[in-house]
Amino acid sequence: MEYTKNFDIRNGRNLTMLVDFYELTMGNGYLESGAGNTIAYFDMFFRKIPDGGGYCIMAGVQQIIEYLSNLKFTNDDIEYLREKNIFSEKFLDYLKNFEFCCDVWAIPEGNPVFPNEPLVVVRGPAIQAQFIETMILLTINHQTLIATKANRICRAAKGRPIMEFGSRRAQGYDGAIYGARAAVIGGCDSTACTITEQMFGIPAVGTMAHSWIQLFSSEYESFKAWADVYPDNCVLLIDTYNVLKSGLPNAIKVFNEVLLPKGYRPKGVRIDSGDITYLTQKCRKILDEAGFSDVNIVVSNSLDEFIIRDVLSQGAKIDSFGVGERLITAKSEPVFGGVYKLVAVEDDNRNIIPKIKISENEEKITNPGFKKIFRIFDKTDNKAIADLITLQEEVIDQTESMELFDPVFTWKKKRIKDFYTKELLVKIFDKGKLVYESPDVMEIKNIVKEETEKFWPAVLRFENPHNYYIDLSKGLWDLKQQLLHEYSSEYEE
Amino acid sequence: MEYTKNFDIRNGRNLTMLVDFYELTMGNGYLESGAGNTIAYFDMFFRKIPDGGGYCIMAGVQQIIEYLSNLKFTNDDIEYLREKNIFSEKFLDYLKNFEFCCDVWAIPEGNPVFPNEPLVVVRGPAIQAQFIETMILLTINHQTLIATKANRICRAAKGRPIMEFGSRRAQGYDGAIYGARAAVIGGCDSTACTITEQMFGIPAVGTMAHSWIQLFSSEYESFKAWADVYPDNCVLLIDTYNVLKSGLPNAIKVFNEVLLPKGYRPKGVRIDSGDITYLTQKCRKILDEAGFSDVNIVVSNSLDEFIIRDVLSQGAKIDSFGVGERLITAKSEPVFGGVYKLVAVEDDNRNIIPKIKISENEEKITNPGFKKIFRIFDKTDNKAIADLITLQEEVIDQTESMELFDPVFTWKKKRIKDFYTKELLVKIFDKGKLVYESPDVMEIKNIVKEETEKFWPAVLRFENPHNYYIDLSKGLWDLKQQLLHEYSSEYEE
Repeated sequence: MEYTKNFDIRNGRNLTMLVDFYELTMGNGYLESGAGNTIAYFDMFFRKIPDGGGYCIMAGVQQIIEYLSNLKFTNDDIEYLREKNIFSEKFLDYLKNFEFCCDVWAIPEGNPVFPNEPLVVVRGPAIQAQFIETMILLTINHQTLIATKANRICRAAKGRPIMEFGSRRAQGYDGAIYGARAAVIGGCDSTACTITEQMFGIPAVGTMAHSWIQLFSSEYESFKAWADVYPDNCVLLIDTYNVLKSGLPNAIKVFNEVLLPKGYRPKGVRIDSGDITYLTQKCRKILDEAGFSDVNIVVSNSLDEFIIRDVLSQGAKIDSFGVGERLITAKSEPVFGGVYKLVAVEDDNRNIIPKIKISENEEKITNPGFKKIFRIFDKTDNKAIADLITLQEEVIDQTESMELFDPVFTWKKKRIKDFYTKELLVKIFDKGKLVYESPDVMEIKNIVKEETEKFWPAVLRFENPHNYYIDLSKGLWDLKQQLLHEYSSEYEE
Repeated sequence: MEYTKNFDIRNGRNLTMLVDFYELTMGNGYLESGAGNTIAYFDMFFRKIPDGGGYCIMAGVQQIIEYLSNLKFTNDDIEYLREKNIFSEKFLDYLKNFEFCCDVWAIPEGNPVFPNEPLVVVRGPAIQAQFIETMILLTINHQTLIATKANRICRAAKGRPIMEFGSRRAQGYDGAIYGARAAVIGGCDSTACTITEQMFGIPAVGTMAHSWIQLFSSEYESFKAWADVYPDNCVLLIDTYNVLKSGLPNAIKVFNEVLLPKGYRPKGVRIDSGDITYLTQKCRKILDEAGFSDVNIVVSNSLDEFIIRDVLSQGAKIDSFGVGERLITAKSEPVFGGVYKLVAVEDDNRNIIPKIKISENEEKITNPGFKKIFRIFDKTDNKAIADLITLQEEVIDQTESMELFDPVFTWKKKRIKDFYTKELLVKIFDKGKLVYESPDVMEIKNIVKEETEKFWPAVLRFENPHNYYIDLSKGLWDLKQQLLHEYSSEYEE
């Protein structure tokens, strides 16, 4: 069955009004003060990688596309806004006839991304570019957070499949649905969330809960009933009463009595509580001795990358993991702090006037201007060396050597040669027209695999990783310094 | 304008397939093994109050009602399931003709709730009662988490209004929408999330972002433009460049030059960065001296209950708060661990057979049977003394004295008299028919206020609160002991 690529359109859900109210008060203000059609440039970027990791995984672009393709204010929306008594009829007319006309660039989903580089760039009339702030942030922040967390958890599992199990603890319905999407992008193999298979073609999986076992007169009867119904895909949950004294013996009994006589091999046992290392080692041994060395041991129960690493390093015998609440909420750091900042405007002659947001906190100072990003690879080993953020008009001569320098400690320099570059930002809307086709989720998952392999293992560590370089071009650095000096002289003591 | 009570119905979004896949494999299994129509009882409850608090605020019942009222499998859903090649035609027919027929009880939204008491009780055919597990957990877990967090933050603000500002950092679209709903239930006054005003009648508010200021040729020009457009509701963001040297002086200049001559009073200034205590004290003094003692100071910037308590205790001069990411994600503890457990089944003669889920971890042992909860109040001061969980058939004689005892340390006893009780669980569906009308969000917000006032302040503390008693009746305690002894004798060493 063809899955439905676009759930919200299929379901007719219109998220246009999911917008911070100040985008509307500002929009009305821009229009009323004559600045509504000023061409503005906004960058969406983040400042810090969650959990002290070495990179993030870009996710959410498909949903941005769906949102931007379907911006539409209904008559009810206009009526609601009119009754707030603060918007002009001119503004309401503008919304009523809203036609999205911005240019939008984004880093395609699945790419490793780093702090301070624009993940999304928007160019368009201030009133429009401002309006879409909320949904761009909400979408990219959420999915990038979960994809990044999932990628950490999958790395900890060292190739063992991870099933996403978190729907019941997600923060809202979309937290479950798009969270599962992002989790699979980040590396999970499947999800328990059924609707995501219909929407995205992600495999939905699941077996039984403890209630199945409790509902029958005994654990043995419940296993037997299950094996009768699902002889070719029999995974039994063995920790309802006592894994070693009851669950596993009953499972093996049912494997022998029900499945083997019918010519089926059992698939697995699942453990959802207790001392994972001890129990899985014991179970593996007992299963092997009973002739079931092909039966998988599946483990769940409040797992994350640290617990998975620990139990594996202690020799736990686990074939796959179900990971729930700590993945679907990114529990250890549940906020991805992406921001959306004005970086330039155009004057009446279409000259780009760069803008900077200063702050007493140096990390919060923005990179001004209309920019692009080059990922630089070493020709000899095809590994990524650094990302270079440049102004739009800058060109990199790949035949020459190039000097990179640290944007803070500028005396830290590195001259590179024999490199090639890849531009990261791709145009997805041209004057409001969609010009990009989003890959399927399973293709994006492959992009993650391919692109992360281009980084040195030191960057991929999930604690104390090597800091990958995000450098500014000389042109961008000079512009930033110039703007900073202008502002600081204005506010000197 | 009448707000639309039911967003998902209005938008035609069908969440029936937002279900853990194992609910479906179990459903098919129940049906195939002849247990599909066994009447099962499930309790939804939680074990631990987030952030070490003294109580939680129940939220999400309205959305459970909407979900249960609209359960429907489309032809596409059936086709999708058929192609999985594991479900019987009998099961697919059952889903195709699905008619919800369970009884459902819930504690109404806005009530303080405590660990181990059932928040939702479901009675119905196993196949149905099992199926709705995912959405009941997802809905109640999410909204109760956020309502509880919001209630903490509002208590820290000691009556100062809180605006919910978190949409951009929420975990998905519903995280923003229903998160804002839950935040207002918990005590917030308003939200930046526009669509929630249309959906729930929650006031949506907002002014300007830093981009407004940056877009103009100067901060002064930007303030002037704003005051021209919004003379009667002028709140200016004063931290784009420098609060004391630029933002506040420019704001006062615009107040004097633009607003006062037109006969308007300015409404406020907002600070989104820097040392809140110092800056607000300075600003208050300067505003007062400039004749603007009626101008409010609004503060935002990664706030939570601890920061709010700290800055207020240091004498910060703040009139209202905007609280974003740490509220909308419940950042300090972003998982609400509600569970849904089988507690009883009916035999062929409609006798209730209690079920227990045992565990090596004592806290994870469930309370068996079909139950109800009484909140017990002292007649003299109308304060809540304890919640008492009883079996359904038990009656409390309010004219007699009653002995309460600790369910673990049973020698800890207390005899009470002159009390009255209130049953907490209310029937919301009777054999699948809705028999309850959910109050509006703003009414639920009032319930929170009224009901929390019935608890002693010691329970309301947000650190190290007094442990409110959740006791079991003698009948329930005896039943639980009996079942525990039966199981433990079965697995003795």
